[in-house]
Amino acid sequence: MDPKAFYAMSYGVYVVSAWDNGRPTGCTANCAAQITSSPATVMVSINKDNYTNKCIKDCGHFAISVLAETSDPAIIGTFGFRSGQDYNKFDDVDYSVKDKMPVLDDCCAYIACKVIDKMETSTHTVFLGEVIGAETVKKATPMTYAYYHGVIKGKTAKNAPTYIAEEENAGAAEKYTCPVCKYEYDGDIPFEELPDDWVCPICGAPKKIFEKK
Amino acid sequence: MDPKAFYAMSYGVYVVSAWDNGRPTGCTANCAAQITSSPATVMVSINKDNYTNKCIKDCGHFAISVLAETSDPAIIGTFGFRSGQDYNKFDDVDYSVKDKMPVLDDCCAYIACKVIDKMETSTHTVFLGEVIGAETVKKATPMTYAYYHGVIKGKTAKNAPTYIAEEENAGAAEKYTCPVCKYEYDGDIPFEELPDDWVCPICGAPKKIFEKK
Repeated sequence: MDPKAFYAMSYGVYVVSAWDNGRPTGCTANCAAQITSSPATVMVSINKDNYTNKCIKDCGHFAISVLAETSDPAIIGTFGFRSGQDYNKFDDVDYSVKDKMPVLDDCCAYIACKVIDKMETSTHTVFLGEVIGAETVKKATPMTYAYYHGVIKGKTAKNAPTYIAEEENAGAAEKYTCPVCKYEYDGDIPFEELPDDWVCPICGAPKKIFEKK
Repeated sequence: MDPKAFYAMSYGVYVVSAWDNGRPTGCTANCAAQITSSPATVMVSINKDNYTNKCIKDCGHFAISVLAETSDPAIIGTFGFRSGQDYNKFDDVDYSVKDKMPVLDDCCAYIACKVIDKMETSTHTVFLGEVIGAETVKKATPMTYAYYHGVIKGKTAKNAPTYIAEEENAGAAEKYTCPVCKYEYDGDIPFEELPDDWVCPICGAPKKIFEKK
């Protein structure tokens, strides 16, 4: 089995949000899709270790904010690198409550859903939601997972004012790579100092399985 | 609710195949995704009206051939508009049997799975499959659903979850009907562009006698 075969599958980049006792929270996700058209239903797959998973189960609803190529890449960091249990992620972004759900302003569309079914897998819950509201927020090209990896990562690094210095300084630094999705950690916080419940922002793999290179 | 919001979600383009009592069959799909990494599982969503749905349930396995931007668009027509119950779709393509499953040669990767769970929705079955084999077939850019629509100018099959909204746009399109069995052509490829030796998938009547409405 060649894990690279999985890379050929195409995805978008989403922030999936829910309420945590009146406090908005959420996480990044790449696996979301429309399942039926009438009634309209969509699915999202959320790692059971993500706090958002619990919140979706508790509040019975979720919303999908579809990121655009023009969306601030920091959103992915905010919603992918921290646990919503410890941090108010929505404090870092502009958002609105639409169809009673928290939705990012910096996205191209949102879909708000009521959970009507779910399928548990070894590590993820596949939630099926009946759509209660969906609107285009901004006319923009949706961000694909391939774009995030191929374009944002490159551009962010090259265009960042600190790029050269960091690259030079980081020459001897150890790299930590997700064995699942091959994401290479490049955050500001040293990898060792990330909390133990930190998970791969791309695929949700736990910190402890990251490989040092 | 604005159905155009759903267009913002990103997908690939896949042929999902199964065995029908030893005969390979399959259909196009756009909703497939990796769900867990260890053990590796993937999901596909298949309309219950698709013959492939029944075949996956009967044989307990499916394979996903991931189409590339360079894949022959005719594949989408062959697998998208005919029923595998009436037609040997695999007669029209080159394919190999890999990990005991029929896989297209003209794809960038394949993933073969054993069904381990499923979730029924109003119109579709979401199959969860444990991966039994996966390989890169060709180094090529995977075809996204956006590429299919925007570059290949493909249409959406009737059983796809995204069908309804597009139907509204396609309201003015001309319909071609078989005068023998009354089958109404609704394939992805414009009727005029079908090969001259194309025949009615239901009764075998030749293309030239189809009636325009």
